[in-house]
Amino acid sequence: MEKELKSQLRQIVGERWFLDTPDELYVYSYDATPLYQAMPDAVVMPSSVEEIAAVLKIANQHRIPIVSRGSGTNLCGGTVPTEGGIVLVTNRLNGLQEIDEENLTATFGPGLITSELHQAVEARGLFYPPDPGSMRISTMGGNVAECAGGMRGLKYGVTKDYIMGLQAVLPNGEVLRFGGKNAKDVAGYDITKLLVGSEGTLAVVTEITAKLLPLPKAKQTMVAYFSDLTDAARTVQRVIAERIIPATMEFLDQATMRVVEEFARIGLPLDMKAMLLIEQDGDPLQVEQDMIRIAEIAHAERAVEVRTAQHAEEGAKLMAARRAALSALSRVKPTTILEDATVPRARLAEMVDQIGVIANKYSVPICTFGHAGDGNLHPTCMTDERDTEEIHRVEMAFGEIFEAAIKLGGTITGEHGVGIAKAPYLEWKVGAGGIDLMKRVKEAFDPHGIMNPGKMFAKDQRRRVVVKTHGCAHEHVGGGHGHSRA
Amino acid sequence: MEKELKSQLRQIVGERWFLDTPDELYVYSYDATPLYQAMPDAVVMPSSVEEIAAVLKIANQHRIPIVSRGSGTNLCGGTVPTEGGIVLVTNRLNGLQEIDEENLTATFGPGLITSELHQAVEARGLFYPPDPGSMRISTMGGNVAECAGGMRGLKYGVTKDYIMGLQAVLPNGEVLRFGGKNAKDVAGYDITKLLVGSEGTLAVVTEITAKLLPLPKAKQTMVAYFSDLTDAARTVQRVIAERIIPATMEFLDQATMRVVEEFARIGLPLDMKAMLLIEQDGDPLQVEQDMIRIAEIAHAERAVEVRTAQHAEEGAKLMAARRAALSALSRVKPTTILEDATVPRARLAEMVDQIGVIANKYSVPICTFGHAGDGNLHPTCMTDERDTEEIHRVEMAFGEIFEAAIKLGGTITGEHGVGIAKAPYLEWKVGAGGIDLMKRVKEAFDPHGIMNPGKMFAKDQRRRVVVKTHGCAHEHVGGGHGHSRA
Repeated sequence: MEKELKSQLRQIVGERWFLDTPDELYVYSYDATPLYQAMPDAVVMPSSVEEIAAVLKIANQHRIPIVSRGSGTNLCGGTVPTEGGIVLVTNRLNGLQEIDEENLTATFGPGLITSELHQAVEARGLFYPPDPGSMRISTMGGNVAECAGGMRGLKYGVTKDYIMGLQAVLPNGEVLRFGGKNAKDVAGYDITKLLVGSEGTLAVVTEITAKLLPLPKAKQTMVAYFSDLTDAARTVQRVIAERIIPATMEFLDQATMRVVEEFARIGLPLDMKAMLLIEQDGDPLQVEQDMIRIAEIAHAERAVEVRTAQHAEEGAKLMAARRAALSALSRVKPTTILEDATVPRARLAEMVDQIGVIANKYSVPICTFGHAGDGNLHPTCMTDERDTEEIHRVEMAFGEIFEAAIKLGGTITGEHGVGIAKAPYLEWKVGAGGIDLMKRVKEAFDPHGIMNPGKMFAKDQRRRVVVKTHGCAHEHVGGGHGHSRA
Repeated sequence: MEKELKSQLRQIVGERWFLDTPDELYVYSYDATPLYQAMPDAVVMPSSVEEIAAVLKIANQHRIPIVSRGSGTNLCGGTVPTEGGIVLVTNRLNGLQEIDEENLTATFGPGLITSELHQAVEARGLFYPPDPGSMRISTMGGNVAECAGGMRGLKYGVTKDYIMGLQAVLPNGEVLRFGGKNAKDVAGYDITKLLVGSEGTLAVVTEITAKLLPLPKAKQTMVAYFSDLTDAARTVQRVIAERIIPATMEFLDQATMRVVEEFARIGLPLDMKAMLLIEQDGDPLQVEQDMIRIAEIAHAERAVEVRTAQHAEEGAKLMAARRAALSALSRVKPTTILEDATVPRARLAEMVDQIGVIANKYSVPICTFGHAGDGNLHPTCMTDERDTEEIHRVEMAFGEIFEAAIKLGGTITGEHGVGIAKAPYLEWKVGAGGIDLMKRVKEAFDPHGIMNPGKMFAKDQRRRVVVKTHGCAHEHVGGGHGHSRA
């Protein structure tokens, strides 16, 4: 990047918020996704929508890639600046501007941390349900960019279901508002929902208005252990078939349980093949009724043990064990590759079976855990990216896992996004025609292709592309990138 | 249209399903929206996605407008073929292909009648919440095109919140699938949600997969009468502020009550200034608790009378009175113009006040009723389109009503769509930049502009455009167009 351009950017955001030393750039060369790394040319940390618009105008004029990011906890390489350019960090726009108790909305900047939003609204008896694994670190801007999910997806949906209004800046610097606080609004195309999950490839989101719900009055947690994986899957299916929709139904296989136990020492029965963690919330009496019925179903489906947490702390401890899964797995080997294959929930047992078969075929260790209630599984491989032969087998295995998911009516990514990691597989899900259409939609926003280039649409379909890590001064490949939580 | 083209279309759909006599064309020259009418050149009624693709290919090649439609119950002129061309009726694709009880989804053709979907899923203990006023006539394809709302929007959202997957045909004849049965799916841009509410301007939807919920176990209905409009609005706001979200909170002003009473003779107290119709559903105990608390709030806000329906039939009768509102209003004068101004719910009282002020200013009779819980009001004017002077005043009044809604943070249309009727006002809501962006998005789907041309984007902003009705053989202007239900 030319000196003159750098000096313009410096003027816009201020000396302190413009970074371009190798050490500074290195920090923004990767995100929570292993295997991907690339150096940006500059990092800017604007403090206002005006500064963002000014940065975008320059970038657009000079065709410089813009990679907007928050905390970088995504797991698809979505914020790795693979084509260099400017990393635009939105973390400074972190104000919680308003909680509107009459309209049940919250309005805030993209830099607000997800769990801070949770705490602020819960203090007023309100509820923002999406709870991605990274919620203590992730920003709401990142949640919007990736359409983050979480454990409560089954009952409460995902980020998209809660975003009502956005302010966003187009690549040409135009500042637009979409949606608002209206529960019903059909004035024109729904650009708001289109931007959610667009992975920074269309615009930079600068303000978010989210829908809130009343905070459920009660919550209960239950754990059930199974000596057969299929029994666990059947329990999930029967609960839904009986028209009970729990807030959470999480699944851990034996391999994950073992690693979690070693990490957290909470007394998991390691001879079991699978466990389910089930949470229900709502009116106290209804929660009580649902939990009793769910326990009956689990017993009928041959659960070896079913235990309802006696108080909130015990419930929180059980959930913490589940939340620790990725941290625990990432300690085992230098590189942890967490995937996101998702199927319609009725195909869960088949999918878990197939993951086992594929892992055996390629002799790679894959643990599986995830959101059983919504069919969103996280098959996770503990490997070492320096072992190129093994990494090749891992990639072959995940390719087959995605293929299996699609054959079962599923998708290549439920909540992590496409980014670089799943770009080569997108065509498997949406077809060549779907990709062409999406590229034309991108052009409508970003005619010069400066917004997060190289993401979502791969140059090379069908093969998993490993981006070569740069030979940086810092030798920092491996486990260090895998420390976000799923 | 050339003979040769007509003969090609005839071959595709079969002689019986190709219409081009003046009498036949006349039937498809209007929809439920008063004031708008235009003759198509031909009507086709295809029976399959293949036939639709073949029709679109020909239309695209020869730049012939395509207006896809179902029952034509929309209230924005969305299916009036203002630029002639082919009306493509999707009613024959009306199969309910599947109710998937394990994944809680239904898959069906766009021609399926909304209330038939309701009945089919409710028979299995499942629930498809959106309930637009026209649900006994409207097709699900039309609901998707307009993103239909209804009375249950407050608690359950609108059509968009339930559409998980679509099959659609692009203007070039390409058949694509978007989304599916996955509760979580972030593979690429969310084209599914973009198509919902796109009013037939992007693609023709040929198959729909919708999310279902468990059917609530209990339902109760309550009516409250107020001698002051503001008390009614404050009741709505306090119920929400107490974190109770009823399934329905409908509002009728005195003028609407009078007309409904004359029509339905159900004993409404006509000295009252407003009434609220409130429904709650869910677990029986919770419903009971909520209704008791809502009654307390209504009394505290000076409701003159609060009555809870003693049994389902009484509740149904009360709701039927509300559903009869448009039918009742449309009997009063030859032309009934039903609008759709919507505000964040906390601004409801202000909006109702302003409608009154504006109606007085232009000396036009406007009744207001609507979905108070979600801020979606239907100010309705009984007029006569042959009285051009009065129609002019009506248009001025509605222009001011839209302006007032936007000033209150609202929108020009909550659930009826933009179509022709609100196209001149779209810029007020989304700005010139928003319109430009939406036009570019349209081009991504429809480069030759054949899909429902003249809708959503007006040539002429800021003034309400009355499209001149064609001098047809049938002199059939007036009330006949207003018989859909809101």
